[in-house]
Amino acid sequence: MNDSLALKKHFEWKGKIETKVKVPVDTQEELAIAYTPGVADACVAIKENPELSFELTGRANTVAVITDGTAILGLGNIGPEAGMPVMEGKCALFKRFGNVDAFPLCLRTTDTEEIIKTIKYLEGSFGGINLEDIAAPRCFEIETRLKKELDIPVFHDDQHGTAIVVGAALINALKVAKKQIGDVKVVVNGAGAAGTAISKYLLFMGAGDVVVCDKFGIINKHDASLSPSHAELAKLTNKEDKKGTLSDALVGADVFIGVSAGNVVSEEMVASMASDPIVFAMANPVPEISPEKARNAGALIVGTGSSKYPNQINNALVFPGIFRGALDARASDVNMEMMVAASKGIASAIPDEELTTENIIPKAVDENAHRAVARAVFQAAKDSGVARR
Amino acid sequence: MNDSLALKKHFEWKGKIETKVKVPVDTQEELAIAYTPGVADACVAIKENPELSFELTGRANTVAVITDGTAILGLGNIGPEAGMPVMEGKCALFKRFGNVDAFPLCLRTTDTEEIIKTIKYLEGSFGGINLEDIAAPRCFEIETRLKKELDIPVFHDDQHGTAIVVGAALINALKVAKKQIGDVKVVVNGAGAAGTAISKYLLFMGAGDVVVCDKFGIINKHDASLSPSHAELAKLTNKEDKKGTLSDALVGADVFIGVSAGNVVSEEMVASMASDPIVFAMANPVPEISPEKARNAGALIVGTGSSKYPNQINNALVFPGIFRGALDARASDVNMEMMVAASKGIASAIPDEELTTENIIPKAVDENAHRAVARAVFQAAKDSGVARR
Repeated sequence: MNDSLALKKHFEWKGKIETKVKVPVDTQEELAIAYTPGVADACVAIKENPELSFELTGRANTVAVITDGTAILGLGNIGPEAGMPVMEGKCALFKRFGNVDAFPLCLRTTDTEEIIKTIKYLEGSFGGINLEDIAAPRCFEIETRLKKELDIPVFHDDQHGTAIVVGAALINALKVAKKQIGDVKVVVNGAGAAGTAISKYLLFMGAGDVVVCDKFGIINKHDASLSPSHAELAKLTNKEDKKGTLSDALVGADVFIGVSAGNVVSEEMVASMASDPIVFAMANPVPEISPEKARNAGALIVGTGSSKYPNQINNALVFPGIFRGALDARASDVNMEMMVAASKGIASAIPDEELTTENIIPKAVDENAHRAVARAVFQAAKDSGVARR
Repeated sequence: MNDSLALKKHFEWKGKIETKVKVPVDTQEELAIAYTPGVADACVAIKENPELSFELTGRANTVAVITDGTAILGLGNIGPEAGMPVMEGKCALFKRFGNVDAFPLCLRTTDTEEIIKTIKYLEGSFGGINLEDIAAPRCFEIETRLKKELDIPVFHDDQHGTAIVVGAALINALKVAKKQIGDVKVVVNGAGAAGTAISKYLLFMGAGDVVVCDKFGIINKHDASLSPSHAELAKLTNKEDKKGTLSDALVGADVFIGVSAGNVVSEEMVASMASDPIVFAMANPVPEISPEKARNAGALIVGTGSSKYPNQINNALVFPGIFRGALDARASDVNMEMMVAASKGIASAIPDEELTTENIIPKAVDENAHRAVARAVFQAAKDSGVARR
């Protein structure tokens, strides 16, 4: 075992969140109101009108952060207990930046149907469900089914949190590069949860074209060996019907988005891109190409997943505000309109006059950015008809 | 809907607990330790040694309060959402009096196997499981199975919390009455979760005899119509092979314990009991007999479930300390030795010289009592070999 500062701190902390009592329970009289017998009045009221569970309990502000431990950070399938430190960290950020009461649940099952069923059993205790670090392609089925079958917002952060923050970074990067989204060609490297969601999302935002690569190269609809989720992706992407490697895909591209392995992009590959290319090399801990090399090779703007460089593209910018807005609107869903609003909210946290090649995205700890996301998502929920108050 | 103060307060509060962040996450640097990339070191350490989930996360101090909503207070099967106000109240008391981080989960299933499976999936996220307000006889199977199949303490509060606090009240009541537990005949009215657990527990504590009644009268082993759980109870109780009604059972009895319906005991029935009878009329909100009537009819000591009278026998005295002690010992179980230690701990919070007929049990908000329970349970876990540290 290593002896990093982070590990030492985790031993010291023994958890990152705790419960806090927010009602008086110091005297017999107070107990008689918050607990028996007074509590029975609240129970009966909810029994008569189940919607009152959003008024008489903490449900309206409570989100479950749920994983099966199969795709934790870059660590892969390490099991539910080993995923807990990440989930707790997420819950801490939910509270700190969204005032959302989030609770981590790590499930000892990797069976799609069992995960869906378990979350359905838990629905009545929560105002929203944040799925986290569940491996692809299982995560697609789980999220799709839950969005359909639950009445509360369901959000798979690895897919949509990443897509939203990339969308935000791209909005501002294109302003700096003076390009229009409808004109740009985007190459996404990685066709798992994040890559798939980013690709679909950028197309929804109006990207000219998106070409997706995985370790076998460009995903092309004529490839009969594609999995169902890749076949679906192939239909939506790669208008020019390109074939070949990542290197082939990058020739003439305006934007590179990497969410897969480190060190897979060379300076030559960046040099082959269109003028003023945008490179988001987000693999962790090692990016697809180092920011120094990418700049040397001609990249106008470089973003990574790390706080060591400028332009950290971090989905911690997304989930606290997404759920704050969705919960405040008592939304039944997190839909595309709300996601785009979140991207614009993040992007708006940097005024146009402050945008530079090294300042396209706010820091994850920027409270203004989180507030902007919450406001924008709340309004989009209203405007798109999924708000219930 | 009524407009009680309790209901108004519940509308105002919107929940009784919230999450509190206990680690610094204000700066990029702090995020890099509590969240990515630093958190990965804690994940890897747990993957290599799953027991470290008790050291590197909040698991060791976190308890799930789980119900299916089928036996909420005296309200019966009102559903999971309507049970939530009680569960939240419980969680508030867990924190306030035991410093335990408890989280409420109300399940939308009443299927025994599904409840068991769901809780098994959740095991890795918790240090203990408090089952709550699950209807009998399902609750027996669920608790028995989970105690066997989980490695963390499982405790059904309606059964054992009630039994323990009754045991505590009885220890002190017998001191005041100058009777020995081995000599006393106890009548328990109610053969659901609480009545069954109380009966077995008092026999374990050495009660001379226990006779259990339900709405059909005395439970007798020759009755072929008994359910499996009542048949088992019949074998353990009623040594004198009594038959008849509650009224018949009470003739000559030393102790009455009511955990069923109100107004089922008359003054004549109390008058028929042995000398200096002890009456615990715990039905809520209406006791089996009012304390005034019971005293008039000759009861030496009267306890109820209500804070309006002296001697409130409230299982809120039990669960915070039981779990505090069990978690501190990292116990694998809550066994009978720990339960008896809890009863003695509660009883010990009133010094012998302060015991009176109207002061046999501490108040539920007595911090000394909770601390005494935690200490006693911790020691009993050690002594009985279930402590893991």
